[in-house]
Amino acid sequence: MYTPRFAGLRLFGSILCLLLLRTGDARSAESSAQARHINSQRLQATLEKLSEFGRNSEGGVTRLGFSQTELDARTYVMSLMEDAGLEVRVDPAGNIFGRRSGSDQLPALLFGSHIDSVPHGGNFDGTLGSLGAIEVIRALNDGHITTRHPLEVVIWTNEEGPHFGISALGSGVAAGVLGPEILDRKDDDGLTVADWLRRYGQDPSHLTDARIPHGALAAVLELHIEQGPVLEETKVQIGVVKGIVSLKRWKCVATGFANHAGTTPMNRRKDALAAAAKDLLAVRDAVRAETGTQVGTVGYLRAEPGAPNVIPGRVEFPVELRDLDAGKIERMWQSIQQRIAQTDKEEGVETRCEVINDIAAALSDPSVQSVIREAARSAGLSTADMPSGAVHDAGEISRIAPMGMIFVPSHDGISHAPQEFTSWDDSANGVEVLYRSILLLDLRLQPN
Amino acid sequence: MYTPRFAGLRLFGSILCLLLLRTGDARSAESSAQARHINSQRLQATLEKLSEFGRNSEGGVTRLGFSQTELDARTYVMSLMEDAGLEVRVDPAGNIFGRRSGSDQLPALLFGSHIDSVPHGGNFDGTLGSLGAIEVIRALNDGHITTRHPLEVVIWTNEEGPHFGISALGSGVAAGVLGPEILDRKDDDGLTVADWLRRYGQDPSHLTDARIPHGALAAVLELHIEQGPVLEETKVQIGVVKGIVSLKRWKCVATGFANHAGTTPMNRRKDALAAAAKDLLAVRDAVRAETGTQVGTVGYLRAEPGAPNVIPGRVEFPVELRDLDAGKIERMWQSIQQRIAQTDKEEGVETRCEVINDIAAALSDPSVQSVIREAARSAGLSTADMPSGAVHDAGEISRIAPMGMIFVPSHDGISHAPQEFTSWDDSANGVEVLYRSILLLDLRLQPN
Repeated sequence: MYTPRFAGLRLFGSILCLLLLRTGDARSAESSAQARHINSQRLQATLEKLSEFGRNSEGGVTRLGFSQTELDARTYVMSLMEDAGLEVRVDPAGNIFGRRSGSDQLPALLFGSHIDSVPHGGNFDGTLGSLGAIEVIRALNDGHITTRHPLEVVIWTNEEGPHFGISALGSGVAAGVLGPEILDRKDDDGLTVADWLRRYGQDPSHLTDARIPHGALAAVLELHIEQGPVLEETKVQIGVVKGIVSLKRWKCVATGFANHAGTTPMNRRKDALAAAAKDLLAVRDAVRAETGTQVGTVGYLRAEPGAPNVIPGRVEFPVELRDLDAGKIERMWQSIQQRIAQTDKEEGVETRCEVINDIAAALSDPSVQSVIREAARSAGLSTADMPSGAVHDAGEISRIAPMGMIFVPSHDGISHAPQEFTSWDDSANGVEVLYRSILLLDLRLQPN
Repeated sequence: MYTPRFAGLRLFGSILCLLLLRTGDARSAESSAQARHINSQRLQATLEKLSEFGRNSEGGVTRLGFSQTELDARTYVMSLMEDAGLEVRVDPAGNIFGRRSGSDQLPALLFGSHIDSVPHGGNFDGTLGSLGAIEVIRALNDGHITTRHPLEVVIWTNEEGPHFGISALGSGVAAGVLGPEILDRKDDDGLTVADWLRRYGQDPSHLTDARIPHGALAAVLELHIEQGPVLEETKVQIGVVKGIVSLKRWKCVATGFANHAGTTPMNRRKDALAAAAKDLLAVRDAVRAETGTQVGTVGYLRAEPGAPNVIPGRVEFPVELRDLDAGKIERMWQSIQQRIAQTDKEEGVETRCEVINDIAAALSDPSVQSVIREAARSAGLSTADMPSGAVHDAGEISRIAPMGMIFVPSHDGISHAPQEFTSWDDSANGVEVLYRSILLLDLRLQPN
C-alpha cells in the first residue's frame, strides 16, 4: 500500500529537477520550444500513421472500441511500445500497459489515454495522450534517464462508449467501478462485451483481475485535447484540469402506435416521434434554464418502423446531462421528466427512461495540479485552471490514485468530428509538459 | 384501342347478371352471406399461408418489395394462380399477370393488388386484394362461368415504397408514369432497382415493355382494406372509393455541425437534430392549420453520427403530405418551408428539401363506382362513398383505364402495423363484391 506524499527533500528535488529539465528560468514560449526534450516530428509521424486505422473520406476516423479496426490499431501501438523498450502486457479488460522499470521499489507512475473513437471522429481525441505517453518514454530513453518510480504507459479500452453504451469501459473496470455485469451487454450485432474481449485475446471470466488496488499507483496523468473552445479563445497554451464533470445518461423509449400515414386522421395519431421531438426540445429548455456551463444533449431519435408512410410507433433516444454539480443535474432531470409526462398526455404516448450511465465528478489532486503548473511554467508555457466537460479515463482512475490532466487547445473547439485539430506545436507543448510533470512527480512523490 | 361504354343492352345485361348472381333482390346481410359465390374458408387458408412469408415475432410481416422474402412469397402466389388455371407471365417491371381467356375478342378486365409490405406491416394490406382476385377466378371456375372479356389477375411490384423510396413502382411503370430513370436508384446496401429486377429474373433494359397502352384495358378493379377507421366507426360494410388523394413527399437534410456533447457550450452548438425536431412540429402545425382531412407525416429523423455523446451534425428526414386537393398541399408546404427557414436561422443550420414523390390525385370512374355499388347492394351489403388517403396501384392504372376500388373495414383503423386486421366475414364480403363487380362489368362494358 502506497500513499503519495509531497513531504521531505522538496528543495533538493526541485533543484535536481530544474537541472534535468535544463531550463534554468522562465523563458519565452519560443525559446522554451527550442529546449523541448520530446521530439515533435517523431510524435507527429506516429500520430499520422495511427490515423490511417479507420480513416474515413472526410479525413477523420471511425475506430470504435471493440472493432477489427481498433484491434489493428492496437497492434501498431503495441509495436511502438515494444520499440521504445517497454514491457507490454494486456489485462483481462483489454487495457494495454507498457512498463519501464524504475531504480527504486516504488509503485508506478501511470500515464496514457485511449485510441478508440466515436463514429466519424477526429485524429487527436485520445491518440495525442496515447502516443504522447510513448514519446515521453522515447525522450527519456534519448536522455538515458532512469526514474525512481517505474513508469507505465496505458491505452485504455473503449473509452468513447457508443459501442455498448458504456463510457470509459477499460478504466472503469480497472478502477473497480465496472464489473462482470457488463459482460452480457449486447451490441446491435448481438455480440456481447465478453464476445469482444475473447476476440481481443482475453478470458472474460478473469475480468476482475484487471482491477487496480487503491493506492497501488503513485499517480495517474492524462494528456488530452480540450475538445472545447476555451484555451484557443483565451490564448492559453496549457489547461490544468481542476476536475471532470459528472455525467448522467438515460435511455428513453417513447411508445405510441405505428399506423398508416395516409389513412389515420391527425387527431387519432399516437406519434412517438412527434412526442420525442418535443422531449428533445424540453431537454434543451431545462438545460438553458439554469445558469452556468452545464450541457445537455439528445444524440439521436431512433424511430420505428422508420418509413416515410408510417406514423412512428416507437422511438428510442438518449438524454445526456453534464455538470460539476450533481445537484444541478438532478434539478434539470426533474424539470425534463415533468415536461416528458406532459407531452405523453398531449400525444397519447408512454415514455419510460432508465439511467444507463452515472459517472460522478472526479476532482484532480491539488498537488498534481501544482506539478503540472510548474512543469508548464518551466517550459515557458501559459496555463489556466479549468474543468473538463468531457469524461476521461483519468477520471475513473482518480478514484484509486492521485490524478492530474493536461489540456491543449482544440482548434475552433471542434472535437468528435473529422475537423478536430490541434496544431503540432500545441501537441508538442502538451507532451513536453507531460514529460516534465512525470519527472517532477518522480522526484516529489515520497512513500509514507 | 378500346374505350369502354355503358350504352346498349343495359336492361338485358342487368337481368342476366342478376340471374347469374342468384340473389334476386336486396336481402339482409345474413342471407346474402349464405348466397356468397366465393369460398371464405379457401380464401382464409391462402391468406394465412401467405402471411408465413416474412412473419415477425409480433404476428405481422416484414416483406419488403424486392427482397428474398417477397420473392419466395411470389413463387407461392404464382403457384396458386397456376392451380386456378391462369396463364402466368411476369413483365419486365416484375409485375405478375395471370390470364383467363374470355369468349370474345375484347380487352381484359384487370384486378389484383400487391403482396409486399412495409417493415413490421400487417397481414391484409395488399394481400386481401391479391388473393381475393385469385379466389374470384376459382369461384368462376367452380361455377363453370366464362366471361366475355378476358380476365387478368395482377400482383404489382413494390407498392409500399420504403425500399428505394418509390411508391407503386410496378404499377407506375405499367402506367408509363415511371421509366428507366428509376433503374439506377440505390438502396442502403448499394443495390440498384436494376440489380433487384435481375434477381427477379427480369432484363432491366426492357423495362418500358411493361407499359400498358392507354385504352388497352377494359377496366381495372382493386379490392383493399380501408386502412382507416371510417367504415368500422360508421358500421358500413363496403367502401366505394371516389378517388385516391394526391401524395407529395420530400427528402430533407438538415446540416449543422457535429461536435463533442460535453465540451461545446449550449450557445455554440449547431444541432441539426434540434432543428429537425422543430421542423417536424412545424409540419404538424401546418397540416392542422387547414380544415379538412389532409394529413402530414415525418416518418423518421435519421441523425448522424448518432451517438449519445456527440451533437448531431446532419439529419435526414422525409416530409409527406396528402390530400385530394393539390392546391392545399402546396399551401401547407409553403408554410412549412417558411418555418424551416426560420428554424435554420435560429439554430445555425442549413436545411435543403427535394421532392422525391409527387403523385397526382386519381379519380375513380363514375360508372365503375356505380357497378360496385350495385354489386354490393345485390349481395345485401351497405356501402358508403369515400376517398382513399392511401396510395394504391389502381390509382396509377386509372391514368390509362377506367378504375374502381372496393374497401372493407380495418379493425380500429389500424394498418401498416402487425395489429392490422379485417374480419374473415368482412374479407369475404369484399371478395364477393369484387366477384359480382367483375361479372357486372363484363356484361355492361361495351366496345365502341
